[in-house]
Amino acid sequence: MAKRPHFLISNDDGIHAPGIMALLEVARELGETTVVAPNSAQSAMGHAISIGKPLRIYQEELPGGLIGHAVSGTPADCVKIATGVVMKTQPDLILSGINHGANSSVSAIYSGTLSAAREGALQGLPAIGFSLCHFPHEGDMSAAKIVAKTVIEHALTSKLLPGQCLNVNIPYLPIEKIKGIRITRQAMGRWMEEFDERTDPYGRKYYWLTGKFILQDKGVDTDEHALAEGYVSITPMSHDLTAHHQLPALTEWPWELPAS
Amino acid sequence: MAKRPHFLISNDDGIHAPGIMALLEVARELGETTVVAPNSAQSAMGHAISIGKPLRIYQEELPGGLIGHAVSGTPADCVKIATGVVMKTQPDLILSGINHGANSSVSAIYSGTLSAAREGALQGLPAIGFSLCHFPHEGDMSAAKIVAKTVIEHALTSKLLPGQCLNVNIPYLPIEKIKGIRITRQAMGRWMEEFDERTDPYGRKYYWLTGKFILQDKGVDTDEHALAEGYVSITPMSHDLTAHHQLPALTEWPWELPAS
Repeated sequence: MAKRPHFLISNDDGIHAPGIMALLEVARELGETTVVAPNSAQSAMGHAISIGKPLRIYQEELPGGLIGHAVSGTPADCVKIATGVVMKTQPDLILSGINHGANSSVSAIYSGTLSAAREGALQGLPAIGFSLCHFPHEGDMSAAKIVAKTVIEHALTSKLLPGQCLNVNIPYLPIEKIKGIRITRQAMGRWMEEFDERTDPYGRKYYWLTGKFILQDKGVDTDEHALAEGYVSITPMSHDLTAHHQLPALTEWPWELPAS
Repeated sequence: MAKRPHFLISNDDGIHAPGIMALLEVARELGETTVVAPNSAQSAMGHAISIGKPLRIYQEELPGGLIGHAVSGTPADCVKIATGVVMKTQPDLILSGINHGANSSVSAIYSGTLSAAREGALQGLPAIGFSLCHFPHEGDMSAAKIVAKTVIEHALTSKLLPGQCLNVNIPYLPIEKIKGIRITRQAMGRWMEEFDERTDPYGRKYYWLTGKFILQDKGVDTDEHALAEGYVSITPMSHDLTAHHQLPALTEWPWELPAS
């Protein structure tokens, strides 16, 4: 019998969020698990890491008698400290999520869930980030669990490559309403900010960041389009931020430093 | 006479860092300025935004009698609140930095400096992030100021496009030793983590994240190569994180959800 795979599990909603518990449940059916996740919610942390403060690791009892490792840092910190301190051997696959809320289109840039997966991929490991298109922590995770299990099984049998990172977004639908799985590209879009200005009891102003998502992409091959049609969206993610198509035109500019 | 451009200036080292003061000095020679920057150091914040806590804006006196706006948030927050609350009209160009330390290769993913520029670009504005390859806040900024001024002038005359974002890295050399400017791509590389384990006075362990950079790229068209040869590196940055080259192979996988 083949050796069971060892999964490193993290997230950005914190070690006690229902989403990571659902992912843990699925992963335990398929292999060994180590959980290293933030000790507090770290949503929208982007790819932040902690360089100005040290990290602490706390042991936390999880359902099923498992001991998880709660870290006083960001999702990317968790993956770094998991592979650098907590784990004796490298995991076979990094799993992050299941995030409470979509990480499609431009949200992929702000996502802590994906930063944990991306950090694993930067270390040369295969990694998958899962997000459910439903923001409240309360909600039915049963379809998301079936999707996550299916995607992990495919990643193991079809062999997700070292350094490969998948962004999986799951529509919030009963499993029988989910039409299938589509491989997609990140849709162009942006958040249109609105600031909710309030005054504290001491007369000082403060601002809550709110906003609405604007889809700027009519493509039918995007994550947003797949989700809108009731499909699971899987987007492979790159670490190369270069806008390659802009290189030729910029090279033509008359760049010159002043003579010294 | 043409209208002078209006620059929005931010950074991740905090509103009083020498780097942003150097950038402000340069920008004031070329146009009008509004400074909206974090009220504390926000290095390595990635593209984090504040959704769990409200933001406050403090007025701070800067050299030359200017009033800057110090925000209790991340670099991306600063650009959002600058365009959403502080500024009456949209800036013509976003400037971020000058960062104390390089943001080449994979550091572009962790960089707060670039997240401010990228946030501006996501809003459809042209944006430039500047980083000096010298980590201490003490250091000679005179060459960096000449480079920054030159790049901004080029961006204005050659017309950096709405949504375009440049990552400018400047070698820490006297201006006469800087060989010129190269348009580059992001080099493949990674940080190899090492955790410095210590014990606090109460007997509890804590960990400082340290590490060294591993260049995995032999290309002569990269940011790292340009810097090593004594050139300023300019890399155009994309918001599309899709690994487009991986799409065809992944589409061939036998994706299927279990029959319900």
